[in-house]
Amino acid sequence: MNIQADRNKILVESVKRLLRRDAVSHLRKIVNKTHAADLSSVFRAIPVSSQRKLFDLLDNINQKGALFSYLDKDIFLDLIEGIPIERVVDVLESMPTDDVADLIASLPPEKSDAILLKMKKEGLEEVEGLLRYGDETAGGIMAPDFIALTQDMTAKESIEAIQKEHHDVEMAFYLYVVDEYGRLVGVSSLRQLVVAPPEKPLKDFMVTDVFSVQTGMDQEEVAKIVARYDLLAVPVVDDNNKLVGIVTVDDVIDIIKQEATEDILKMAGAGYEFVENKSIIKSSRLRLPWLFASCMGGIVASLIIAYFEDSLQKMAYLAVFITVICGMGGNVGTQSATIVVRGLATGRINIRELWKVVFKELSTGFILGSIYGALIACVAQFRYGIATFALSVGLAVICSMSAAGLIGSLVPMLLAKVNIDPAVATGPFVSTTLDIISVSCYLFIATALVSQ
Amino acid sequence: MNIQADRNKILVESVKRLLRRDAVSHLRKIVNKTHAADLSSVFRAIPVSSQRKLFDLLDNINQKGALFSYLDKDIFLDLIEGIPIERVVDVLESMPTDDVADLIASLPPEKSDAILLKMKKEGLEEVEGLLRYGDETAGGIMAPDFIALTQDMTAKESIEAIQKEHHDVEMAFYLYVVDEYGRLVGVSSLRQLVVAPPEKPLKDFMVTDVFSVQTGMDQEEVAKIVARYDLLAVPVVDDNNKLVGIVTVDDVIDIIKQEATEDILKMAGAGYEFVENKSIIKSSRLRLPWLFASCMGGIVASLIIAYFEDSLQKMAYLAVFITVICGMGGNVGTQSATIVVRGLATGRINIRELWKVVFKELSTGFILGSIYGALIACVAQFRYGIATFALSVGLAVICSMSAAGLIGSLVPMLLAKVNIDPAVATGPFVSTTLDIISVSCYLFIATALVSQ
Repeated sequence: MNIQADRNKILVESVKRLLRRDAVSHLRKIVNKTHAADLSSVFRAIPVSSQRKLFDLLDNINQKGALFSYLDKDIFLDLIEGIPIERVVDVLESMPTDDVADLIASLPPEKSDAILLKMKKEGLEEVEGLLRYGDETAGGIMAPDFIALTQDMTAKESIEAIQKEHHDVEMAFYLYVVDEYGRLVGVSSLRQLVVAPPEKPLKDFMVTDVFSVQTGMDQEEVAKIVARYDLLAVPVVDDNNKLVGIVTVDDVIDIIKQEATEDILKMAGAGYEFVENKSIIKSSRLRLPWLFASCMGGIVASLIIAYFEDSLQKMAYLAVFITVICGMGGNVGTQSATIVVRGLATGRINIRELWKVVFKELSTGFILGSIYGALIACVAQFRYGIATFALSVGLAVICSMSAAGLIGSLVPMLLAKVNIDPAVATGPFVSTTLDIISVSCYLFIATALVSQ
Repeated sequence: MNIQADRNKILVESVKRLLRRDAVSHLRKIVNKTHAADLSSVFRAIPVSSQRKLFDLLDNINQKGALFSYLDKDIFLDLIEGIPIERVVDVLESMPTDDVADLIASLPPEKSDAILLKMKKEGLEEVEGLLRYGDETAGGIMAPDFIALTQDMTAKESIEAIQKEHHDVEMAFYLYVVDEYGRLVGVSSLRQLVVAPPEKPLKDFMVTDVFSVQTGMDQEEVAKIVARYDLLAVPVVDDNNKLVGIVTVDDVIDIIKQEATEDILKMAGAGYEFVENKSIIKSSRLRLPWLFASCMGGIVASLIIAYFEDSLQKMAYLAVFITVICGMGGNVGTQSATIVVRGLATGRINIRELWKVVFKELSTGFILGSIYGALIACVAQFRYGIATFALSVGLAVICSMSAAGLIGSLVPMLLAKVNIDPAVATGPFVSTTLDIISVSCYLFIATALVSQ
């Protein structure tokens, strides 16, 4: 797991050392032979003044463009602050349109307007076309450059067309075939063109059953289709089935990683975006609201305990097992919620099987609760020798862990049913609810059973 | 998020209806035109007898092979139980070798031995070659079919070679160039071949700076490289730099999804593998051990509370805030642990920055603790009007949430440092440790400050 990290660290250290020594010719050599992805890691570790210095050392405008698209958005913003806008525009115009649209969408309006004003007409139209689509839709992530041929072209003509016109298309493995209205009618590949008899027209060997997605489709859905059917790219069509762009598999990988990170953070109630690179104050502010629900829930749990204060006064040992009962419930609840949320995200759990899933989690919680309930009841019996008390503790663990299976699965399933992202409130919400249920069950059962 | 799920549900329902009516010709039509990925979802929803019926209706052996590789491993096992072994072997021999090796590795030894015995020599050698490598290494996931050309071949000769010999290679977009010992020396693409002058030798236009991975590299590392550099495939070489296979981007997507699921489940203490499709008993058994540490920790917390029993007897209100203090600590701990574990997995946090990361999480915990500590102290003051008690509650929240930031970041960082997967024990381990710390701090501070 550390090979990549080690390589990066070595690179960062060398660059820092050379920067300190101001060894410009060395630095020039290094930055020009380093992959833009790696260079973006270096930029993450050095101050903005050094970033600008390295950026100026890049000889190739395509390398500059690649670096732009790999940089974190906030680093990109700081970097271009100090570069004349004309030079930024030059770099942007050398980049694939979808990457440019992504960057521009992340800029503050006054900056993006200034850049769009300076861009040449052709690129500008494409970028503005892309900016029309929602950020996280197929339209928003597609590249508008693709190879589209017509169905009457022969294999030979198609190859010639590619040789002449499509030098600069990113990742050209699929060749899309369109009719006279630009509507998608088939797909072929360079592979097939090379193997087919030269005079054979495309329509005789193209595949007509093409997977395609609509411009408005959510990016997560697009990623699922590409992953499910092992595609390298999927064509994007508008409402009239006109081919308008493609989404390539490298973008899909980014989406899958980003969605997984978002789900993980949301489930832990740690916000939507990765906060580790932000300042302490910023990161506290982002995490603060997610704890508020827990705090309110915790206060409710306190009030419930306060309601039983008289009993607690008489039987102080009741307080001893509150933590372990809440803890066990919380853990099972987290297990169930995680399994359900991830199952929904990966399609292994179907939203329509609500009761089947909930029943299963409830049963699992009950079984686990019976086992650990017996164990913890034994501890209580051994420590205090009051059978009714030990029984109460055992029963409370069973109730708490069964409720955990129920709540942990029901909440995300219901949220998904009404189209709310089940990952959002699941984590802290479920564990706080379970605290309330656990203390209520426990103290209610104990005060009822144990003779005071 | 539900388009794919809806489509699948409709398909499953139609198939079930047709199975009930035993409408064989309809079923035959449907299964033969359905993508194997979708058919595998149908198989997940129907009993094994129906699965066999549908399988027999598949006309094309390649379609049968594709279905095999999409099926969940346990469904595959049950399905082939009822099929004569010769027919299973026929299907396997039509499949890409890496998929066959995957399936065979998942079978019980007596079954896999029986199958290997029946396989033809050529395929057998390739499969056994792959089985030698670790399951989750580059060698274990690579496909041994790839296009390798020699550097003196011209563009035209290369195209002819592809037309003649490489009809059946999966996803041929990169063409690897090897020397006389089979060592990897460069890479080209069909794209470049088509565009290059026909008589130009490969060595004049191939790219010599090729990304490659060693057979023993962990699959997660391979996935990182493919994702980082936007590759469609990465060549796998042995210790002598001899090209032995390729890992394609579709396998990388599966790895990324699988690793994300594993991390999520591990963090929640819900095991390594997805248990939702297993029986209630099986799933309980898998989840049981993960709760044991929490249970032990909970019992320790109980003993600590028991130690303060006299004070609790005199001041029953002390018990009232135990739950909310533990809960707030647990939530912040989960936030910190999640951010660090995911940050390490995605490379946004570097393992060498241990103290920087821990200090930051500790500070964030302290800030959040001060805010919520003040809030909860106000509630305590309002309810009981005992200033020393309210102060104790507030201080306990600060201690608990600061400790949460510290433990939540330190534990995964240290685990990563000694090369233990940080996701494994983080979740339940961190929250249980925090319960112990929280009750200790709280009761110690309260008994010290509040005059009895």
